[in-house]
Amino acid sequence: MPSLSPLLTDLYQLTMMQGYHHHGLHTHEAVFDLYFRRLPFEGGYAVWAGLEPLLDSLEGLHFAEADLAYLDTLNLFSPAFLEALRGWRFSGQIEAFREGRVVFAHEPLLTVTAPLWEAQLIETLLLNTLNFQTLVATKAARCVQAAQASPYGGQVVEFGARRAQGPDGAVSAARAAFVGGATGTSNVEAGRQFGLPVTGTHAHAWVESFPTELHAFRAYASLYPDSTTLLLDTVDTLRSGLPNALTVARELREQGHELRGVRLDSGDLAYLSRHIRAALDEAGFGGVQIVASNDLSESVIAGVIAEGGRIDVYGVGTQLTTAGGTGGGALGGVFKLAALQGVPKMKLTGDPAKSSLPGSKHVWRATDEAGTLMLDVLTLGDRPQAGQRVSDPTNPLRSTVLEASMQWANAREVVMQGGQRTSAPESLRDVQARAKAELACLPAGTRRPLNPHTYRVSLGGDVAALRDQVAEGLRGHLGQ
Amino acid sequence: MPSLSPLLTDLYQLTMMQGYHHHGLHTHEAVFDLYFRRLPFEGGYAVWAGLEPLLDSLEGLHFAEADLAYLDTLNLFSPAFLEALRGWRFSGQIEAFREGRVVFAHEPLLTVTAPLWEAQLIETLLLNTLNFQTLVATKAARCVQAAQASPYGGQVVEFGARRAQGPDGAVSAARAAFVGGATGTSNVEAGRQFGLPVTGTHAHAWVESFPTELHAFRAYASLYPDSTTLLLDTVDTLRSGLPNALTVARELREQGHELRGVRLDSGDLAYLSRHIRAALDEAGFGGVQIVASNDLSESVIAGVIAEGGRIDVYGVGTQLTTAGGTGGGALGGVFKLAALQGVPKMKLTGDPAKSSLPGSKHVWRATDEAGTLMLDVLTLGDRPQAGQRVSDPTNPLRSTVLEASMQWANAREVVMQGGQRTSAPESLRDVQARAKAELACLPAGTRRPLNPHTYRVSLGGDVAALRDQVAEGLRGHLGQ
Repeated sequence: MPSLSPLLTDLYQLTMMQGYHHHGLHTHEAVFDLYFRRLPFEGGYAVWAGLEPLLDSLEGLHFAEADLAYLDTLNLFSPAFLEALRGWRFSGQIEAFREGRVVFAHEPLLTVTAPLWEAQLIETLLLNTLNFQTLVATKAARCVQAAQASPYGGQVVEFGARRAQGPDGAVSAARAAFVGGATGTSNVEAGRQFGLPVTGTHAHAWVESFPTELHAFRAYASLYPDSTTLLLDTVDTLRSGLPNALTVARELREQGHELRGVRLDSGDLAYLSRHIRAALDEAGFGGVQIVASNDLSESVIAGVIAEGGRIDVYGVGTQLTTAGGTGGGALGGVFKLAALQGVPKMKLTGDPAKSSLPGSKHVWRATDEAGTLMLDVLTLGDRPQAGQRVSDPTNPLRSTVLEASMQWANAREVVMQGGQRTSAPESLRDVQARAKAELACLPAGTRRPLNPHTYRVSLGGDVAALRDQVAEGLRGHLGQ
Repeated sequence: MPSLSPLLTDLYQLTMMQGYHHHGLHTHEAVFDLYFRRLPFEGGYAVWAGLEPLLDSLEGLHFAEADLAYLDTLNLFSPAFLEALRGWRFSGQIEAFREGRVVFAHEPLLTVTAPLWEAQLIETLLLNTLNFQTLVATKAARCVQAAQASPYGGQVVEFGARRAQGPDGAVSAARAAFVGGATGTSNVEAGRQFGLPVTGTHAHAWVESFPTELHAFRAYASLYPDSTTLLLDTVDTLRSGLPNALTVARELREQGHELRGVRLDSGDLAYLSRHIRAALDEAGFGGVQIVASNDLSESVIAGVIAEGGRIDVYGVGTQLTTAGGTGGGALGGVFKLAALQGVPKMKLTGDPAKSSLPGSKHVWRATDEAGTLMLDVLTLGDRPQAGQRVSDPTNPLRSTVLEASMQWANAREVVMQGGQRTSAPESLRDVQARAKAELACLPAGTRRPLNPHTYRVSLGGDVAALRDQVAEGLRGHLGQ
């Protein structure tokens, strides 16, 4: 991936940086938490994605001469400040969930400890990268979960480049979809950048470029005898596409090859796929896959399966690449100051749901003996103990007592220290495998696509007490 | 903008290209139309955007050695084909609506006439660029329209980089938002790339980094005495933010400066802005702007204005950058073969709404004496004449007779010939001005944000007859 410019930020980050620098605060040690307040798609979980590309970006982030020259034209920045930016590098620490883990609302997914002006600058880049990739990885996981509910199995490939939000939106969506369990993408650039399996069929234009559909099918199969998937609906799926595909499948077999698949792109996918599966099986082509596309989503997939649809590969485009649907389109991750020079900080606001949690916190995750996730708890440091009472971050009246059966682990790791990765980059296949394993450890109710059981993220007594104390202090300053 | 790789495409474009090349069809002259079937946001119009960046990309598009080396690893492409790609450039013609015009469903917005394999390759790039930018420009126009409905006026700035779909999603959204009427962006990189006005305030973290909010406000104002906008809600908007802002406004004035604005980011924006406007006016600060943010959209803006809200600048983030809301998130533009070697082509499919229109078509737009848009008509060439009957593209039973008062103009221009622009790139300010002028010519009912009057796009008799004839021919081939 080409390295990003630090100008990919909001103007106020730079004007604040200059302010911190001017007032001598820029080197004060700040702690910022990244978290979101609401799970996407009204679902029960999110798949954390984008960490590895973020660490790449941070390691390379610097101001080029052209960046400084542009900033100078804005008549906002002093020569001294621009000079200070010249040697600027990110030197901080990052503690985070490893990419591919399942995560929830109201817990710090990533904590930056860094000189104040460094942490401030990277906010936009962090949120831009992690919000979008987490959103798409979660959408992919939901689609894969729907596809695998079929007794016959089913896989998801990403087909959305043409509807994505910009070229990079397409490429990073393909990556994130793979983290969430997609097995491939149609996007060649994403294939190159991330080593993803690339896949595809042909378009209607191919069929229209030959005298008849059968000519077109034969022409494609002759060139790709072992990897042809024929699109059936240019003229009429059942009356033209299917019989022509069967003809080509037979001809291929006579030559020692096998047709790989057929693709449906319109009509009633449940009905058509049942009919076509039966026709293929009856003709001795049980190995020919049925691929479907046409504005698929997790709910369309579930609907097709509920009606006995026999689709092997779901090519999910628009809804995956743009993470559409209720509660989709964007993940509302935020990045909030939690401490400065060791002093806990919070934003109060008039809206309790938008208050932040002060202090440098740890995230602990409890599992049962079977490894199933039970509860996440935030503390100021100590491992939670059985018998302690923990409370809901948005409703202090809702509390629970920790059980002895809960096995606790620190959920996050220090992934960057002094501006450098603490370990080698992880392969995308390892990240995908982690996500798969994590999803398998979710309680069934939390995995439910609609109206899921809410997985609890709770505050240890120390965090809740600190929040009350800092809020009280802020209210004491009212009007000053 | 860095030049894009031709690998930013779907794999099937490349496998089809090889197929056309292998079968000697690659140089056949193809005509492809780009259009969408449904207006975004359930609205009455779209603002066409992305054309200039697309022409930039096409002029520079070529296969680098690294692209060819990657393709070679896929074991799908012959050495002869890869060699043929080495010198590949786009050499075709593009006829299109100029950027910034208002456009509608079912009309060809852009027509490519080019050797078949060239047109096929660029499909993904075209759709990726134009779908997203048109979507965001339209969203911006809807937000600006809502803001300007206030008796006090109101402007929209783009604040969404942190929620955008990837880095480029952020940058290209900022550009498209400007086309649609936004007056600036917080995104510094977009400011640099497109010469957009960049704007911003400060964050909650700034306030939290000083002993009190008043210290923080003074520190910011001292550094930016003529361009400070103070964020009021870190502690409490009315009890802390407002009185502190008034103190700083008075202090600035004593020093010969004026506070530029205050920003609301939570709470009831209608109530708070009325209250704060009154307080500022009473204290003699009628010139201080009220800026608002917090998950705004055209409907939130309209609601705030309906309740007498007094916001001058709407900082619209997530909903603008990701083009959220009903009917948003993605624009379903498609790119369909209309003719090959002069022979009209169409996709029939089992779903009439997904059929394409064959033939090389012209788009004619009728206005009345006042310049208000009346009707768009597609013909195979000739200018529409009064008395002719034209029909709805999705419902042939719905037809209308053209009136003598209709003044017709060819709606599109040849913007690229032989792979090169036919005229110099347009400035973004000119494009924005065109969009503004075009929106002013929409019938009021078509501009309505919800349940608008459907602007008619109709088929001339020649187009409708050709469609029936080609469809008949395709049905005649069924089963072959």
